[in-house]
Parts: sequence; structure tokens; C-alpha cells
Amino acid sequence: MTTETTGRVLSSLEAALPGLEALYVDLHQHPELAFTETRTAAELARRLTEDGFEVHTGIGRTGVVGVLRNGEGPTVLLRADIDALPVEEQTGLAYASTARGVDDDGNDVPLMHACGHDMHATWLSGAAHLLAAGREAWSGTLLAVFQPAEEGSGGAAAMVRDGLFDLAGRPDFVFGQHIAPGPAGWVLTRPGVIMAAAESLRITLHGRGGHGSRPETTVDPVVLAASVVLKLQTVVSRETAATEPAVVTVGSLHVGTAANVIADDAVLEVNTRAFDDGVLQRLHAAIERIVNAEAVAADAPKPPTIEVLNAYPVTANDEAASDELTEAFRAHFGADATLPAPQVTGSEDFGEFGRAAGVPSVFWLVGGFDPQQVITAMTEGRFEKDVPSNHSPRFAPILHPTLRTGVETLVVAALSRFPHPATGRPA
Amino acid sequence: MTTETTGRVLSSLEAALPGLEALYVDLHQHPELAFTETRTAAELARRLTEDGFEVHTGIGRTGVVGVLRNGEGPTVLLRADIDALPVEEQTGLAYASTARGVDDDGNDVPLMHACGHDMHATWLSGAAHLLAAGREAWSGTLLAVFQPAEEGSGGAAAMVRDGLFDLAGRPDFVFGQHIAPGPAGWVLTRPGVIMAAAESLRITLHGRGGHGSRPETTVDPVVLAASVVLKLQTVVSRETAATEPAVVTVGSLHVGTAANVIADDAVLEVNTRAFDDGVLQRLHAAIERIVNAEAVAADAPKPPTIEVLNAYPVTANDEAASDELTEAFRAHFGADATLPAPQVTGSEDFGEFGRAAGVPSVFWLVGGFDPQQVITAMTEGRFEKDVPSNHSPRFAPILHPTLRTGVETLVVAALSRFPHPATGRPA
Amino acid sequence: MTTETTGRVLSSLEAALPGLEALYVDLHQHPELAFTETRTAAELARRLTEDGFEVHTGIGRTGVVGVLRNGEGPTVLLRADIDALPVEEQTGLAYASTARGVDDDGNDVPLMHACGHDMHATWLSGAAHLLAAGREAWSGTLLAVFQPAEEGSGGAAAMVRDGLFDLAGRPDFVFGQHIAPGPAGWVLTRPGVIMAAAESLRITLHGRGGHGSRPETTVDPVVLAASVVLKLQTVVSRETAATEPAVVTVGSLHVGTAANVIADDAVLEVNTRAFDDGVLQRLHAAIERIVNAEAVAADAPKPPTIEVLNAYPVTANDEAASDELTEAFRAHFGADATLPAPQVTGSEDFGEFGRAAGVPSVFWLVGGFDPQQVITAMTEGRFEKDVPSNHSPRFAPILHPTLRTGVETLVVAALSRFPHPATGRPA
Amino acid sequence: MTTETTGRVLSSLEAALPGLEALYVDLHQHPELAFTETRTAAELARRLTEDGFEVHTGIGRTGVVGVLRNGEGPTVLLRADIDALPVEEQTGLAYASTARGVDDDGNDVPLMHACGHDMHATWLSGAAHLLAAGREAWSGTLLAVFQPAEEGSGGAAAMVRDGLFDLAGRPDFVFGQHIAPGPAGWVLTRPGVIMAAAESLRITLHGRGGHGSRPETTVDPVVLAASVVLKLQTVVSRETAATEPAVVTVGSLHVGTAANVIADDAVLEVNTRAFDDGVLQRLHAAIERIVNAEAVAADAPKPPTIEVLNAYPVTANDEAASDELTEAFRAHFGADATLPAPQVTGSEDFGEFGRAAGVPSVFWLVGGFDPQQVITAMTEGRFEKDVPSNHSPRFAPILHPTLRTGVETLVVAALSRFPHPATGRPA
Repeated sequence: MTTETTGRVLSSLEAALPGLEALYVDLHQHPELAFTETRTAAELARRLTEDGFEVHTGIGRTGVVGVLRNGEGPTVLLRADIDALPVEEQTGLAYASTARGVDDDGNDVPLMHACGHDMHATWLSGAAHLLAAGREAWSGTLLAVFQPAEEGSGGAAAMVRDGLFDLAGRPDFVFGQHIAPGPAGWVLTRPGVIMAAAESLRITLHGRGGHGSRPETTVDPVVLAASVVLKLQTVVSRETAATEPAVVTVGSLHVGTAANVIADDAVLEVNTRAFDDGVLQRLHAAIERIVNAEAVAADAPKPPTIEVLNAYPVTANDEAASDELTEAFRAHFGADATLPAPQVTGSEDFGEFGRAAGVPSVFWLVGGFDPQQVITAMTEGRFEKDVPSNHSPRFAPILHPTLRTGVETLVVAALSRFPHPATGRPA
Repeated sequence: MTTETTGRVLSSLEAALPGLEALYVDLHQHPELAFTETRTAAELARRLTEDGFEVHTGIGRTGVVGVLRNGEGPTVLLRADIDALPVEEQTGLAYASTARGVDDDGNDVPLMHACGHDMHATWLSGAAHLLAAGREAWSGTLLAVFQPAEEGSGGAAAMVRDGLFDLAGRPDFVFGQHIAPGPAGWVLTRPGVIMAAAESLRITLHGRGGHGSRPETTVDPVVLAASVVLKLQTVVSRETAATEPAVVTVGSLHVGTAANVIADDAVLEVNTRAFDDGVLQRLHAAIERIVNAEAVAADAPKPPTIEVLNAYPVTANDEAASDELTEAFRAHFGADATLPAPQVTGSEDFGEFGRAAGVPSVFWLVGGFDPQQVITAMTEGRFEKDVPSNHSPRFAPILHPTLRTGVETLVVAALSRFPHPATGRPA
Repeated sequence: MTTETTGRVLSSLEAALPGLEALYVDLHQHPELAFTETRTAAELARRLTEDGFEVHTGIGRTGVVGVLRNGEGPTVLLRADIDALPVEEQTGLAYASTARGVDDDGNDVPLMHACGHDMHATWLSGAAHLLAAGREAWSGTLLAVFQPAEEGSGGAAAMVRDGLFDLAGRPDFVFGQHIAPGPAGWVLTRPGVIMAAAESLRITLHGRGGHGSRPETTVDPVVLAASVVLKLQTVVSRETAATEPAVVTVGSLHVGTAANVIADDAVLEVNTRAFDDGVLQRLHAAIERIVNAEAVAADAPKPPTIEVLNAYPVTANDEAASDELTEAFRAHFGADATLPAPQVTGSEDFGEFGRAAGVPSVFWLVGGFDPQQVITAMTEGRFEKDVPSNHSPRFAPILHPTLRTGVETLVVAALSRFPHPATGRPA
Repeated sequence: MTTETTGRVLSSLEAALPGLEALYVDLHQHPELAFTETRTAAELARRLTEDGFEVHTGIGRTGVVGVLRNGEGPTVLLRADIDALPVEEQTGLAYASTARGVDDDGNDVPLMHACGHDMHATWLSGAAHLLAAGREAWSGTLLAVFQPAEEGSGGAAAMVRDGLFDLAGRPDFVFGQHIAPGPAGWVLTRPGVIMAAAESLRITLHGRGGHGSRPETTVDPVVLAASVVLKLQTVVSRETAATEPAVVTVGSLHVGTAANVIADDAVLEVNTRAFDDGVLQRLHAAIERIVNAEAVAADAPKPPTIEVLNAYPVTANDEAASDELTEAFRAHFGADATLPAPQVTGSEDFGEFGRAAGVPSVFWLVGGFDPQQVITAMTEGRFEKDVPSNHSPRFAPILHPTLRTGVETLVVAALSRFPHPATGRPA
């Protein structure tokens, strides 16, 4: 049962959809890597300005913040992330990305919104538009936060350090959402830990190069790296309990320049996940132990170099705020479309906003795929194969009703906290 | 006992050395990849022209041929290769290379003459100069062949296809040499197989990408590649007899772009060696069997793609020509400095010239390192560690007497076949 | 708050303890493998007879059943398992086992009660004694079931097939318990799945033997087995979700008889676990895929042979019966000592009794270790290292209060279902 | 051209063959492990006694020596080894072994003469018989030495320590032979190193056992062993030059007793080979480095235990004696059947006799397989697959002419050193 206020604010959604679809397609075709989202930021800022927000750009390098001061009441922060990934799109969509960019190491790489941040940005742009258009129905201060560099580069912390909370004070509530490989129209959340802690490492294994025909004069970094990769599998298979979720992924591995030259070094990038910060530390310790010992086994000339690229703690929803928001979602979407979220092994720096402000935050998931296809795939045990997950080059959400649902969730969440200007009770 | 003729031709070597040293340093500082050796070719052509050769450029794209028609007599082909490698120099030499270039895949890579082709080119330039200056001491036709793209790209075959033998007819004898990690001043050769057959493969292992936190939705190409690399070690350790030399090297391995994204594919470049073409074929078959089965073990969505980048047969010296040349070397350098070469696992496309012409060819090795250091290292069992081999980023030949020795070998070889114009007997 | 009836039945426990301790030590020193527990069965039968039970031996080959018909009322089945393991005891206990036996393959092996079935049998013997002694306090029929061959050999199913339910009809409730590495005095249970589904496989990898010096004439089963073992680690690390508990353990691996002979075959025994029967099937499928493909990769002369040694489904507690029993435990032991059990990855064939009878069953865990040591170890994160788990050669429960607690649990469970003969209400 | 003397001595071979065939079949059906060859020794001693030899038993525990003092002249030692292997015969021969025995670890194992020592013993028994029968044709002292425990247990050294050379003084020449997978009727030898140096190690990897469902409480020795086995493959594939023959074989690997119990330890037996004692030492050092580092990588509670089971140096033939013997073989068998031996990677303790006596020794190989089958297999590149090598469970020499050839070789070798009593010149 949608509240009357919510109904009023959402009444212009239908009219806004064509513009949101155009925005989504535009962002999808122009993906930008962490801290280089300048085109994206400009477009989002332009729309906020049109909608009457006070707009701050360059917050956290390429972040954008819209402030709508709308009378007495709490400050609610709605957050979307906006960066893309170095993935080569293979969706076959008419509006698939063919963009390329330069990564931190100076390499030319393909770009894709493979994690759906284009959808996140579109949702928040839409919700900001509707809440601004319907501002007579609520009172308080709305912060629309478009965060750069969520993919491992610490954009949330960068915005906080860069004075985010100086723009309109500390928020009272922080909300955020993520598109997920579930049925479009579904909203999923849970109290407590919803997303994993994560750490990314860059490990350089030092060998000794030489001619490919004389391996006995070298310490072959390819073989050393291969042995490390297989040994790292045992951290999850043997060193963590079955009931203690953990992931160790070697996402990239680069060695050598030619078939007949043995290189000096191998570089691995490793990503770990757990739902408990202590487990994450144990994964780190095991990785260190293994790469060091493997280097000795290979007679390496020196120990590996291990750099921490980034580390995110668990994303934990405030229990009370989560329960209250779930009630609001149930009232709006119905119990059939408001489901308990599983703990997901993805990780986020969304939690940084609530932590830094010392206020409750809630994060939820919004399905983005053909319900029939998802349910058939689940029933037939083909979900993992048939529904490309976030970060896949084939990640391709459907536009409808996905666009609509994610706008509604943000509006419902904001209005669950904003009082009605007339009554002073929740909108 | 050096022949009088040889002595006469070599009499101007002392005066030529400063110029050769300058040429060597210049080439060393300007390494160029296969089929892009345009600066190198221009400089070598300029010197040939100065020395009175008829000069042909662009033979085999970037090859250079100097023809010196000097009366009746046989045609002798002296060959040097001129291409560099994508290796980052770490010699610490004052004249170390800092050059970079673009490889076949469009990547920006460091460049180095890590295989000593700069020395080869300098030697042949010097020998051509001396033989031209001393042309009254011999008669016949001299072909100075500067071959591009020896490192796996088939430059020899390209020159032959491009009409090399149309310039001055087929040669009667073909000679070539390589700098090796032995004592400077030493010359080593052998009848029969002197260098290995080799093949280079590019293998693409197809997985299925996804988010790093959800490996169960993917087929992880990093783990598949690691398993392939370790399994390939068994081809040599278990599938070839101990007395049947073979090498399988994975020189490069590239997967993925980020720690938290599982990529679709892994690309390996593999190089194999053997002293018998049949063994090389068995290595190829074993590699095919392993990569295909490993892909099945990993539940890969499709079989690996295997491309042959290049394949060189064994380099075999004509028995009689080799014995005769060894005699000439012994007479000139003394028995102490003329040694039997081991079979070396390196490979070459030098053999292509003799094979295509249907005439005898001989290939030999010239030491390029401090004799004291080499002998101490060998005695103490530290040779492999202390003397950086060809293709190492620390490969750093000493200039003297290396420059001199390699010029002398070519002059001795040529004059062993050219008659004296007065007597008609060997020069 | 212990009920009066329970208090009365337990009033003779103190006097019975010395005899139970003697029984435990005797069983501990005389471990017997699955289906060979003849000495154990004889001693347990002797005690049941002394206590006035109608005794049936040879039920399920070496199982023992005591029936006590004690008037109107439900039939309650209490079950203990009695078989030992082929493990060499390393506890250093004064009463450590030095026994040996012959396993199914005819090998002479060390024996140990490394899973605590000696404690289980002692508990049930004690509870049977007390319930018989206190029979005036309750009415109904008590079945004391000593099951053989729990460790992977299907003893529960064997007893059912062998007519267990013909002895005194189908039970109305089935109860069982297991000693666990928790603090002595604690009782832990949960509704729903409490123990994992499991499957054990024997996999024979076929190679081709030969002389150790000529591996090229063979297909080396040691290398094949090693590759399989490492690849099997990826089933958990890459093919199951982090939130989907699964275990794949290769418990035994045997190849060859001499250093210098390459054997024909390798034999692995693999054990898998999951809390969902569908996941267990996926593990099976992945193992089959991997061992078959690895055999192809190794050029094996024929595919591996895979035998299912045994397969147990999940152990699931009836929700209502579990809740009621938890209440009874809380009343007797207090809330501090009655805790929610985690799902444990161990598996059991206890569930077979309830399933076959079509009645509710509940299974729980009883701690058996020094509480101070367990809690210190947990606090310091050293639990896994300091508290030897079931199946460890160092598994050494403390006798007190462990002996007492496990007798009390069975008495409380039985009396929670037996009415008082006078009142007809729960005892 | 067989000498007249040789012809005379061999004239009774035809008559002796049925008895030799019976001896061979009897020995084949009664294989005995190292230092337990009591039945074998008794039968061989009985025959020597019948033939008039002075017989010494128990030399080197189970060795047998026959001495025939036959006048002036040199002492010639002919040696055969007599021990069998723990291999289960799969030849399908009518006279296949079904014997079993107890190995050093107390295990019951199948037994087979899988290395042909039954043939060696039969050959020497036959040659001793013929030389005794024809003693009027030569003069000198013949030592027929039946050595126990060649397969890694140091039987040769045991005989020397036990006073072998006190029985009839030091020999002047030592001869020995081995059956090989070549055409029956062929004899192969070479001056210098003919067989490899070898070492056998027993390596115990220490893990920490526990329940198969809780790997996180353990250090799994199966996974550790698998990782060690794969890493050991790199010693040959990466750490030895292609031109430097080396073999590292893990012949046996044993861990655990049940699918669902993780064991404490894994035991590997490793055998190494090289044609150079320095290379063998490098293999040893690499193995030590790898197993120690792998234990650290696995977080093992203590370092592995490494025991040297045995170590044999290279078997090197005296150059002059080898050349002279080759001449004698050519004269007798013809040049077509007397071939240069390859270096074989098998190893032997035969060299111990010559080394200890300080006299020349020569060792050679005798083919034992159907020539047509061997040559077809070689031609079609199926030799490794079609001709089961020594130590294979399918090793099955043909009896004719194998039996005859190996008797003739010993007679020819002995007579090449014994003078004719009349002339004093070589018999």
C-alpha cells in the first residue's frame, strides 16, 4: 500500500521515463574509469541544476553532489556510484559500449559499465528529479550524491575527505542500492552484514630472466606464478571452514613479452572477500605465507613484493533502519517483490558514508533481469550460466521495469524519513 | 698459422676498430623489433655503400644486402641478423638502451639488443669493410646479408622469397655466427646439428568472465592457465627421455585487467625446442592434448585456440664444410681458441639460406665475455648464475676482444673459400 | 529446572559413574572397525541383559538392540554408534589404544576410537541402566539401539533392513547425540539441517607402469594423481559459491611400491560434504569431469574408475520435536549450557532411523573438552589448533563431566516423551 | 668368427638349454625381494656344486659365489644379480608369478622378476656350467658371483664388505650384463658411462590430521604431497639443461587410511638419475629446497623428514677393456648384432666390484624381445608403448634366443681373458 505522498511524488515518473532511458543509454555508451568520470559528472550535474538543486562538482575529484534544502526536517543522503570497468562489452546490445580508455598503468583498455553504475546514476537522477518536482509533499534536506571510483579506488572516502559533510551538514540517514542479477521488479535487503569485506593486492613475484631455451639459467616467473595460483586455491578449499564464506580470486596475471624469452617478474592482482573482517585478515596472512614460501621453493632471487591496492570492510545495515525501510518497501512494492537479501560476496565502499557520519545507513539490491528468464534459470539450475553476473562482459540488464523500480525505491526510502510539511508526520 | 692473405686483409682491422665500436654502441642504443629495423638498415646500407658494395635494401621488408663482385670465383654469403627484443635492459652499462617500441599487438614495450644482434651486424659490417679494402687479395663474389626478424618472425625465409638469390645468383657457401656466453676470443663449432629446432605457439584459453566475488558463475581463466603451465612441465619431465633434449617454455602469460574482475580468456605464448624434428612434433602433440583436456577439466565453454607463431627446423652444419672451416679457424686462432661447440638449445633461421640455395652452410659461436669471469664461474659451478645468457636483461658482452674476433672469423671463413686471384688457389 | 521424575531417574547416576568410566576405558582400549564390533557388542549386550532388557544381537550384522517394555505409552528409540577408525592414537593417554585390525582391503591398520563412539556407547549404556532402574517413574517402550558401522558403511540402513522395527514396532521418536569439540557440560542443537550430506568415492586413476628411469615409456600415476588432487581444490574454491558450504577432501592416496618403479595405478578416496543434496550432486559431477579430463591430459590408457563407497543425505531435525527437546534441555541444564548448534560439516546416518520409520527425530551435540581450554582457545583464535577435532589422532575427551552429561541428555530426552505412569502426563 | 676355443666350450649349450629354461621358469615363478633370496640362492648353489665349483653362500647375507680354480691365469669375475621387485605381474604368461612377500615396512606385496634378474641368474648358471664342462680349453680362476639386493639395497657393497675378495683373491677383470628391451640376439655396449648415477629418497611430509569435514583444523598432507609432486617436475623441466640428462621420479606416494579422515603425514619415495655425479647432487639440493619450502607454504607443523635410501654412482666401463670386449663380441656375434649401447638412465651397483677391486670392469646389455616386434615398434614410433620396459608389470622377455645369447656373451667375455692352457695365448 503506497502512501498518498509517495503516489503524488511518483505521479510524474511515467513522463520522466523516456528521458531516463536516454540518460541510461548515453551513460552506457560513455563509460569512464575511476576518477576520470568527467563527462558523466557534467551530464549529471546539468540535470541536477535543471531540477533546481544546488550543485557541487569536483567533490572527491570527480564526484557530484546535489543539495535540495526543502524546509525543516532530517537530511537524507541518497548515493549512486558512477564509474565503469576495464571490460570489453560482449552483450550484443544495440547500445553496447565500444569505448576505450587508459588505465592507471597507462595501458589502453576497453571500457564497459559492467557493474551497472550507469543504472545507479540514472536511478538517482530520476529520483532527484521526482523529489524536486514533488517538493511540496515533503520537508527536509535531500543530498543526491554521485560518487566516483567505487571499483576499488576508494571514491566514498575521497568525497568524505573532500568536505562532503560540509556542504549541508551531516546527513541523518544514508541510503544506497545496487542492481543485481535477480528478477526486475524485485527489491532485496537484510539487516546486518549485506556485502562482504574485500581486499585487493598486487603481488610481484621476482624471478630471473633469460633465454627461453635455457631455463636452467633462470628462475621462471611463469611457473612460479602458476604454482602460486594453484596453491592459493587451497586457502579457501582447506584453510577456511565450509561455513565461513571466503573468496580468493586472482583477477589478473601478467608475465613476459615473448614466447622465447623468460621474463624477470610476474605480477598478480588478487582480490579477497569475507563476511567477517577477521577472516579477511586470515586470508591475507595465508596469501603472504604462500607467496613467500613459493618464492623460496622456486629459488627466487628475492621475496615477492606485496602491495595493498585497497581494502573495504563489510557493508552492514543498521538493524532498526533496515527493518523500517523493509516495511516501507513492503507497503509500496508488496511482500512478493520485497525479499530478504542473501549475503552477497560483492563489496562496496557505500558503508563509508554512514560510518564517517556516525548515522544509520541501509543498502539494498534491485533486480534487473527478465523475471521469466531468471526464474527458469534458477529452477533448472542454470542461473549461474544463463544470467551474466555483475562484471561479466555480457552483463545486460533489461530497461523495463528496472529503470522504474530503482527510482521508486529511492523515492520510497527518502519519503520514509521526510515528514509531510503539513502534518510533520512521515511523508 | 694465419695465411698471408688473411694477414693482409686483416691488416687494417686495428684502424677500423674505433669505427666499429661506435657502430656497435649506436646500434645497441637504438634497438628495433623484427621487420621495423629501418634505422639499423639505413646505417648498415650507408657503410656498405661507402665500402663500394652494390647495395639492395628492402629485401625481406627491412633486410639489406651488399654485393661485391670481385672477379672469378665462388659466391660466399656471410649473414648477420639485426633485430632486437622486447626486453628492458638492466645491464647498468653507460650505453644501455632506454628505447621503447610498439609490438605486434600494439603494446608499448621496452627494447634491447638482448641477443647480441647488434654485435652480429657490427662484425659483418667490419668484415665487409676489410674484405672490400683487401679485395686485391681474393677473387669471387661476396654477399653481405643483413637479415631482419630472426627472433621468431622468419626473416631469412622472407629474404629468400623476396629474391635474395636473384641479386647475384645462388651462393656456393653460406656462413653465419652467433655471440655466446663463452670466453671472448674463443670460436666454437661442430659438424651436424648445432642448434635446436623450435616452435612458438600462441594459445588462448577460453573461460567465462564475471565478478571476482562470484567465481561459481565463471570459468576462471587464471586458474585454468596456471594448471596448464604446471601440466606442461610434465611434457619434459615425464614424456621425453632424459637422453632426448627438449625444452618447453611458457614465455608469456596474460590474463585480466583488474583484481576483482574474472576475465574471459588467458593468452599464453609457448616456445619448444629439440634437436630432432620428430621430437618437436611430439612436444606439439603433447601440448595440444594437455591444453584441450585441461579446458575440459575446467568446464571451459569452448576448446583453446592454438596458433603457430613460427617454427624453425634444426640448424645443421654440412659435415665436410664444417671440418674444413674448423681447420681454417685452428690455423688462424690456434687450437686452444677453436673448440667443439656443444649442441645449443637456441634456434635460428640461418639454416634457411643453405637449404633454399641447396648448398653447404656452417654456423659457429663466438665467445663474448670476460674469460677470467667465465672460467671462474664455470669452475665454481656458478656459470648459469654469473654469466647472463642471451635474452637476459643483463646480457652484456665485453667489447674487446669480442669485436675483433667476430670480424676475423668472417674474414677467415670467406677467404677459406675465395681463391687468390694470382694463383687460383685458396686465398 | 529439572523435573521431579528426571531427578528420580538420575538419582543413581553418581553410583553408576565408576562402572561407566570402566566401560569407557575398556571400549577405548578395544576399538573395532565397522561391522567387526563383536567384542564391543558382546559387552554392551551383557550390560543390557543385566539391566533387564530383552536383548537382540546381530541386528545389522554386529548391532545390538535392547528392548524395555514398560507399559502403555510411546516407543522411544535412543541410538548410539559403536565403530572405531583406522587411526593411530597419539593422545598420550594412559589408556590410549594400541590395537590393530584388518581393514576391508586386507591391510593391517592401527585402530582408535577417534570419533568418540566409545563415549556414545557408554552414554547409552548408562542411560539404559538408569531408565531401567527407574522404570517405575515412566511408562512406554524404550529401544536402546547400538548401531555398528556408522563411519561410512551404512550401519543404520543395515539395522533397518535387518528387521529393527520388527523387534518392538516402529518407534514414535528417535533421539541420538554426538560428542563434539566444545566445552564439557554444554549441549547444542538446532531445528532443521544440523549435519551435512556426504559422499565417499574411491577413484582409481589408470596409468601405465615402467622403470623409474624411463618415464617416457609410462603414464605416471603419481603425477596424474597429484594433478587431480590440486585440481579438485578448485571445486570448492571456484565452483561453489562462498555462501554455499561445501567440502571436498581427498583422505587417502596410494600409489606404488618402490622409489624406482613407476606403478600402473593410483587410488584416491574422496569425501564430499554439503548442507544441500543438490550441491552434493554438483560436487560429484565436478569430480567426475575433472578426473576424466585429467586422465586425458595425462594420456592415460583408460578412463578412471569411480566407485561410490557410501552416500549419506543431510541430517535434519524435526522442527517441532527439536524445539520441544530444547525446552527440556534448558529446563534441565539451564540456558547457559543449552546452546544453538552451528551446522556442522560432519555427516551421520542417524537420520536413516527417523526416515525409515517416518517419525520425528532429533540429533544433538555434547561438548567433551576442558571448558577453560576450549574458551581460551576460542578467545585467542587458536581453537582449530588447540582442540583436536573428531578423527584426529589426538582426539581426547575429558571424562568428567562428559560422561555424566551425555547420560543426562538421553534420560531427559526419553522422559520428555514418556508419560508418568500415574498421571499419564509427560514424565 | 668365433674362436675355436669358444666353439668348443659352447658345444654343449644345446644340450644344456632345456635345463636352463626350467631354471628360468622356476626362478620366475619364485621371485624373492632383496636380501631374502634364500630359495633362489639355494638352487643356484646346488647347480654350482654339481658343476664342481667351490661354493660359498651367505656372502653379503644371501649372495652365492662359485669358485673354479683351473690352473694358471687371470681371475675373471662374472656377476649376475638375483633379487626381484614388489610388482604385480600382468604378463599373462603361463608361468607368470603369483608370489607375494613382505617388504621392509612389513607390508604384504606382490612379487615379480620385473627387471629380468631371473634371466641374469640363469645366464650365469649356464655359463658357469659350460665353462666348467669345458675347463680343459682355458686356464685361470673363474668367479661366478650371484649378487643379492641390486634393486636399491646395495648388495654389491655388502658382498665386498663380507669378504668376497678373500675367497679367491681380487679378480683381474669384472664382467656383468643386463637384459634390455632390444631385439633378442643383440649385444650392446660402450666405453665410459653406460648407466646412470641414482639416488633414492624417502620423504615424509608432516601435516596435521583431523576430520575430513573440517580441513580448516588440519594441515592436509594429501594436498601438500600433490603440490610437492607437481613442483618436483620443474627440477627437470626448468632447473636442468636440456642437454644434461636427468630424471626425478616419485615412485610411491602413500597417505591416509580413509576417505573421511585427514591423515597426519604423507610418505613419498623419490628416485633420481643423472650421468654425472654433480648433476645428481644438484637434483638432491633442489628436492630438499622444494619440499622444505612447500611445507612452509602449507603451514606444516614441522619440516619434512628426508632419508637417503640408497645412492649409486655412474656405471662406467673401462675404455680399453670395453674396446677389447667389443672386438670379441663382434668376432662371435657379427657386427650386425654387436651394437653401440646408448647411455641408459637405469643404474646399477655392478660398478662397485671393479671399483673395490681397483680393476677394469665392463657391463653390457643383451636384447630380450622379439626382433620383428621391436623393429616394427621402433619404425612406427611405438617402441615406448609396445615394448614393456624393465620394471613394468608386463615385462616379458622371450626365451629364445635370449637364453642362449646371454650365456654366450659371458663365455665369450671370460674366454677373451683366459689363456689357452696349451698356448698361453687368449683362449
